[in-house]
Amino acid sequence: MEKLEWPAATLLYPLPVVMVSCQRPGEKPNIITIAWTGTVCTKPPMLSISIHRDRFSHEIIRESREFVVNLPSVELAKATDYCGVRSGRNEDKFAVLGLTPAPARKIRTPVIAECPVNIECTVDRIISLGSHDMFIGRIETIQVAGELIDKSGRLDLLSSGLITYVHGHYHAIGKYLGHFGFSVRKKKTARRGTRPGGRRRTKKD
Amino acid sequence: MEKLEWPAATLLYPLPVVMVSCQRPGEKPNIITIAWTGTVCTKPPMLSISIHRDRFSHEIIRESREFVVNLPSVELAKATDYCGVRSGRNEDKFAVLGLTPAPARKIRTPVIAECPVNIECTVDRIISLGSHDMFIGRIETIQVAGELIDKSGRLDLLSSGLITYVHGHYHAIGKYLGHFGFSVRKKKTARRGTRPGGRRRTKKD
Repeated sequence: MEKLEWPAATLLYPLPVVMVSCQRPGEKPNIITIAWTGTVCTKPPMLSISIHRDRFSHEIIRESREFVVNLPSVELAKATDYCGVRSGRNEDKFAVLGLTPAPARKIRTPVIAECPVNIECTVDRIISLGSHDMFIGRIETIQVAGELIDKSGRLDLLSSGLITYVHGHYHAIGKYLGHFGFSVRKKKTARRGTRPGGRRRTKKD
Repeated sequence: MEKLEWPAATLLYPLPVVMVSCQRPGEKPNIITIAWTGTVCTKPPMLSISIHRDRFSHEIIRESREFVVNLPSVELAKATDYCGVRSGRNEDKFAVLGLTPAPARKIRTPVIAECPVNIECTVDRIISLGSHDMFIGRIETIQVAGELIDKSGRLDLLSSGLITYVHGHYHAIGKYLGHFGFSVRKKKTARRGTRPGGRRRTKKD
């Protein structure tokens, strides 16, 4: 595979694309769409969102010290894009888009009711990087749409129809390729006593 | 939409899933697969990878102060999973998986030749969070497969067949939903003089 050199740029993809709700006390809530986001720690569970220092939501979250990461579904693709392009300085995005601010469980900032997953965060710390500041959010609790939880209590996140962002384009999630650990999992056989798996067990691939 | 409360956890999806190559001088290179990664700054271009403090690659990158984020394609799904499950303390993953370490352009750590995109990074800083430490990487340069660049010089990243990680499952990228700015873009018409777009122009949605 012949390789060419490409100028240093933000080329890590696919990324999540999320609608972040935020609010200063006494003001209307706002929404900003962010793809510069990711999980950063398992224990305690933390994620980060990076926001350009000129954005309206930057000053809101810097002051309120909390925000909600709302995962949009494919039906919300247009609203997701809109909240990444428009500024809340000039309009009420909840109103313009017909979205519903609903109470969070652990923080004051409202969640977006139409999003199937709402991750309520408090700001653990803010790290200045350059054009963007990174807000590290401690995940306080999560709201999930009841229909995503199956009879056995398992969360089927994929059925919510998540969106991914690839180099300027929004896409749905595609074909299933495998589950975590599938490369080392033993195949089930008809033989009695065979254990179905165990991802740490040795198996030549 | 009825909502249930879900315990605080790492539930931000879909995520990228990348093969990070790393190497200490005088030792064999290693690969670790990471989904706790994201873009964190545009100028200068930076990304982060979070690594559990017990992982072999954690000590390597802490010492070498550099790493490569290699984007795998769907053909590499099994190898990607394998490098997230196995430890480089016990085996040479390049050798086991038949992958090729190739020279980077700006750092000493080799890239994975079979990955269509290789993002060469130096460590800007390391931030301790809990179970994981976050390594903030400054993007020094990038190698891309020549076949991803079309005749007009545009990078068609999607044609490389990227992988996304959703709550324990690997998936290909699915249906196209729209491009950045599509929610506010004026429709093209046959009328002469109509400008084709402009994402900051007002348009009722």
